[in-house]
Amino acid sequence: MNYSSKLIADAVSEFTRLPGIGEKTALRLVLHLLKQDAQKVNHFGETIAKMRNEIRFCERCNNVSDDVLCAICSNVHRDASTVCLVESIRDVIAIENTNVYRGTYHVLGGVISPIDGIGPDQLNIPSLIERVKSGEVKEIIMALSPTIEGDTTIFYVSKKLKEFPVHVSSIARGIAFGGELEYTDELTLARSIATRLPYENALVKGSN
Amino acid sequence: MNYSSKLIADAVSEFTRLPGIGEKTALRLVLHLLKQDAQKVNHFGETIAKMRNEIRFCERCNNVSDDVLCAICSNVHRDASTVCLVESIRDVIAIENTNVYRGTYHVLGGVISPIDGIGPDQLNIPSLIERVKSGEVKEIIMALSPTIEGDTTIFYVSKKLKEFPVHVSSIARGIAFGGELEYTDELTLARSIATRLPYENALVKGSN
Repeated sequence: MNYSSKLIADAVSEFTRLPGIGEKTALRLVLHLLKQDAQKVNHFGETIAKMRNEIRFCERCNNVSDDVLCAICSNVHRDASTVCLVESIRDVIAIENTNVYRGTYHVLGGVISPIDGIGPDQLNIPSLIERVKSGEVKEIIMALSPTIEGDTTIFYVSKKLKEFPVHVSSIARGIAFGGELEYTDELTLARSIATRLPYENALVKGSN
Repeated sequence: MNYSSKLIADAVSEFTRLPGIGEKTALRLVLHLLKQDAQKVNHFGETIAKMRNEIRFCERCNNVSDDVLCAICSNVHRDASTVCLVESIRDVIAIENTNVYRGTYHVLGGVISPIDGIGPDQLNIPSLIERVKSGEVKEIIMALSPTIEGDTTIFYVSKKLKEFPVHVSSIARGIAFGGELEYTDELTLARSIATRLPYENALVKGSN
């Protein structure tokens, strides 16, 4: 497109680098910012840059953090003996939004996926072993996606943990609350029958 | 949502101020930027802020500009005797993208709309009159939206221009190329019959 202004063209081009933002959307955002106070737009730019420059990763769990330890690891009200193993920061946010889990996390940074060239060496597994070695961890909850890669990772990590006195569990897999039985895939349905549980525990109100 | 990092929460909050961007999209953008080089993210923030801080409005036509005069007004190959009157910068970009128009523009900054509290005094009409007074303008093409407000503005501006020896025209209104006759609204269809034109001029290949 022809913007007759290099400043506009540059700003549009920066926005189009973001995922899911095409040129028309980028132009709409730029023209919106053009109408705002200069101070607000400067604050926008500074906040984004500051986020990237100052963000750190928690030395214990690899979650995003404003400090050496993240807000969850440094919270004394969280149970450090229970560690939830997740793939990414996004999963930490998803579980935190349930407002139910009171333990801590360990962010792997991915799952074992030979097709994407990701082996166990690229994941934060050694730091997890260190945490277990220190003796403070009693239970590790595997909260990885129910995919081949997720299952491979669970298998690998649990093998590494075998020699330590730590309980390894996995988040429950089955039919989602609100889901319809007839539209559930065969694997999920078959597994949810095989791993059936006392009916009192399966009800919505009995879920916590 | 609970991000366990104020830096992330602030950046997400800045993105959600943009039109059409909700909290989930904002988080996706922030996590994307988190994976980029710090240098690239700084450049993103600086480019946006620079755009807002350094942008100017053309002293002649009120288009966005990097200088005193915009790239179109300062281009000696453009025909300064033909002025296309548009509502906004967005319309300039739309017409420029046709690559057909070789004249200049005048950006009104809106249309007369009593319901939105916009009267002729808030629009860039005096600067248009000045341009006409200077004698360099021979034709003004009204390229405003075919709405009540657009028509009111055309009527008001053309009345103001009556005393000057300038030709006032309007962009053609009718059925869009590629449009289907049976789905065209009655007003457009009725007007396009009333303002019918020699068939040679109406064909796709005869449009320029």
